[in-house]
Amino acid sequence: MTLTILVAPSGFKESLSAEEAADCIEKGVLRACPRAKVLKVPMVDGGEGFTKALVAVTGGTLHECVVTGPLGTPVLSHFGFLGGQDESVAIIEMAAAAGLRLVPRDRRNPCITSSYGVGELIRAALDAGARSILLGCGDSGINDGGAGMAQALGIALLDKDGLALPPGGGALGQLARIDLSSRDPRLDSVRIDAAVNWHNMLLGERGVARVFGPQKGATPEQVELLAHAMETYAEAIHRTTGIDVGSAPGAGASGGLGAAILGLLGGKLHPRYDIVMQYLDLDSMIARADLVITAEGSLDGQTPFGKVPAEVGHRAKEAGRPVIALAGTIGKGVTLNFEHGIDAFASILKAPCSLDDAISAAPKLLVRAAEDAVRMVRVGMLLTERGLAA
Amino acid sequence: MTLTILVAPSGFKESLSAEEAADCIEKGVLRACPRAKVLKVPMVDGGEGFTKALVAVTGGTLHECVVTGPLGTPVLSHFGFLGGQDESVAIIEMAAAAGLRLVPRDRRNPCITSSYGVGELIRAALDAGARSILLGCGDSGINDGGAGMAQALGIALLDKDGLALPPGGGALGQLARIDLSSRDPRLDSVRIDAAVNWHNMLLGERGVARVFGPQKGATPEQVELLAHAMETYAEAIHRTTGIDVGSAPGAGASGGLGAAILGLLGGKLHPRYDIVMQYLDLDSMIARADLVITAEGSLDGQTPFGKVPAEVGHRAKEAGRPVIALAGTIGKGVTLNFEHGIDAFASILKAPCSLDDAISAAPKLLVRAAEDAVRMVRVGMLLTERGLAA
Repeated sequence: MTLTILVAPSGFKESLSAEEAADCIEKGVLRACPRAKVLKVPMVDGGEGFTKALVAVTGGTLHECVVTGPLGTPVLSHFGFLGGQDESVAIIEMAAAAGLRLVPRDRRNPCITSSYGVGELIRAALDAGARSILLGCGDSGINDGGAGMAQALGIALLDKDGLALPPGGGALGQLARIDLSSRDPRLDSVRIDAAVNWHNMLLGERGVARVFGPQKGATPEQVELLAHAMETYAEAIHRTTGIDVGSAPGAGASGGLGAAILGLLGGKLHPRYDIVMQYLDLDSMIARADLVITAEGSLDGQTPFGKVPAEVGHRAKEAGRPVIALAGTIGKGVTLNFEHGIDAFASILKAPCSLDDAISAAPKLLVRAAEDAVRMVRVGMLLTERGLAA
Repeated sequence: MTLTILVAPSGFKESLSAEEAADCIEKGVLRACPRAKVLKVPMVDGGEGFTKALVAVTGGTLHECVVTGPLGTPVLSHFGFLGGQDESVAIIEMAAAAGLRLVPRDRRNPCITSSYGVGELIRAALDAGARSILLGCGDSGINDGGAGMAQALGIALLDKDGLALPPGGGALGQLARIDLSSRDPRLDSVRIDAAVNWHNMLLGERGVARVFGPQKGATPEQVELLAHAMETYAEAIHRTTGIDVGSAPGAGASGGLGAAILGLLGGKLHPRYDIVMQYLDLDSMIARADLVITAEGSLDGQTPFGKVPAEVGHRAKEAGRPVIALAGTIGKGVTLNFEHGIDAFASILKAPCSLDDAISAAPKLLVRAAEDAVRMVRVGMLLTERGLAA
């Protein structure tokens, strides 16, 4: 019986999309094992690639438009509509309007970056006839709690003098009142389902500002400023709508965008893979495979909390399939993944190098790593053929 | 049937001895596969650890003595005698008197470093009653063609004015005449067998100065100076003894020490593993194993030319055993090793890092890498148990 291998990687941040990663792994697998049958499921979460992947698997349509970028200048963005049965369902990824990639490294300051463009994408989707919206969260470059998105949809955020707040999470510390009187009335009849990382909280020690602020460019002082601003913001939302975004799972997703979706737009938050998996059909692909190979930029003690390899690992484990994980960086606490369906892992690195070098060489390294992992697997297959037991 | 795994690594330069590497790999193997039976054969070549390893496996004796170091200052050194049947056989490693480790990084200049202390070790072994000498070459910090060793044994190297040359390979460009009249007479009756890298030549583009000079600290100008000095030296040896060291395999070993052993001391050169293997009994250990794991600091296109993983690979291949190689750095041309008995390889690296960080973390990384490799192998064993074929 010939080996069927399912390749289900995440993208590698700043170097490979999930599709590209899947192609690299396939290439390496076939070098080591030319007779293997390879199935591919590029694993998107709600972040970059969400819209294009769902449009592609459903045969939907993609629409380009210009929106206000995170720094206030226009950016070319896009949204989509699902194909097939669900043609009135729009797909939006927040990263296409307010992603970290849209903020040059030397201008990263999450006190001022805004999610305004995400609100403009929602308006554009409503203008195009959307009756339901799938909103993907992830890879954000903002920490404004979705305030900008809310403002773009007519929701007024006012200081104690009744003046509108400027863009960015830093200003939310001055928030005194939220005025819903000019809120886009179409929000009352559209259904919004957001795919979020369920583990992302808005407030506290594990809240969005403290956990993600630094990687978006915040200084320690800015992190504290943002953390307090998010508290003021959550209190204002609670006073206005009665919804407690401070303790809701996923409300901290994408710089707190989850809080506005839940508290101001009337949307629902969902663990991201619950939405993505409906379309990717991962479980039936796992059922057809003998071995699963997943991958992500990093594999460490955080992986079990909502990252692709653990999601793939859990589902493969339920189906009784062994799983190999490849990663650019193997980090602290990685062995925790053995309890989450990962049977073996390998780094793609081959020599001492800088992070930048590793990122630029990632495609080649991933091909090599997949070949090397499958070669190890073949050594084991040979041993059992000879009647040996581990 | 339980898995028996032979662990036969080289040392990792500047971080792990072969014994330490074997212990790390054993630890990792047992973490992945607690029921495995592990055999260990730390693989020494003629370099650092040669004397202590052969003394240990034969139950011989170790003798400490002070000799002239490569920079002319005294260093604590050692030689040994084999135990068992061969008690009059002395074991000497050149690195214990003229190794690269004895030259501080900021003083590395192979134009002036000398092998004089190696000659003193030979004298000490003769004084102690040696009737035969095993001389290990490797890890040298000199490029004097063994001139210093010859001088320590009474051989005069003279310039055109009949004055003795100063220490170091650079001076050999001035060599006009070799005078054997004061050569230690005991050299006529002792047998000297040197373990050398058979691929190391004295002269030409692949000669010792050009290939190894830079890593011993030579500037490009010094490399050329040394390359020409080696030519003058080889011509003088040929005029004096009729022996052509310029084209002899292994004559370039250890900064050209092989040339003096062959051309001036009357010794014989041997491919290093032909000597080492007589004592390490690797082949019978391979025969008892199902799987072999080897390791070295680097694995690349040079590995097949006399490095430990290829030597282990060849012997395991003859016996039909699969071989896994672990390495700190996987370099250019590495796939050539698939033709030399290596079935699969992995780097020990887990994240972007500097060479110095990799060196200091090597023990921990090697344990982890061995565990990860065996986990991959176990995935393969599981697949075949389920009736699958690659």
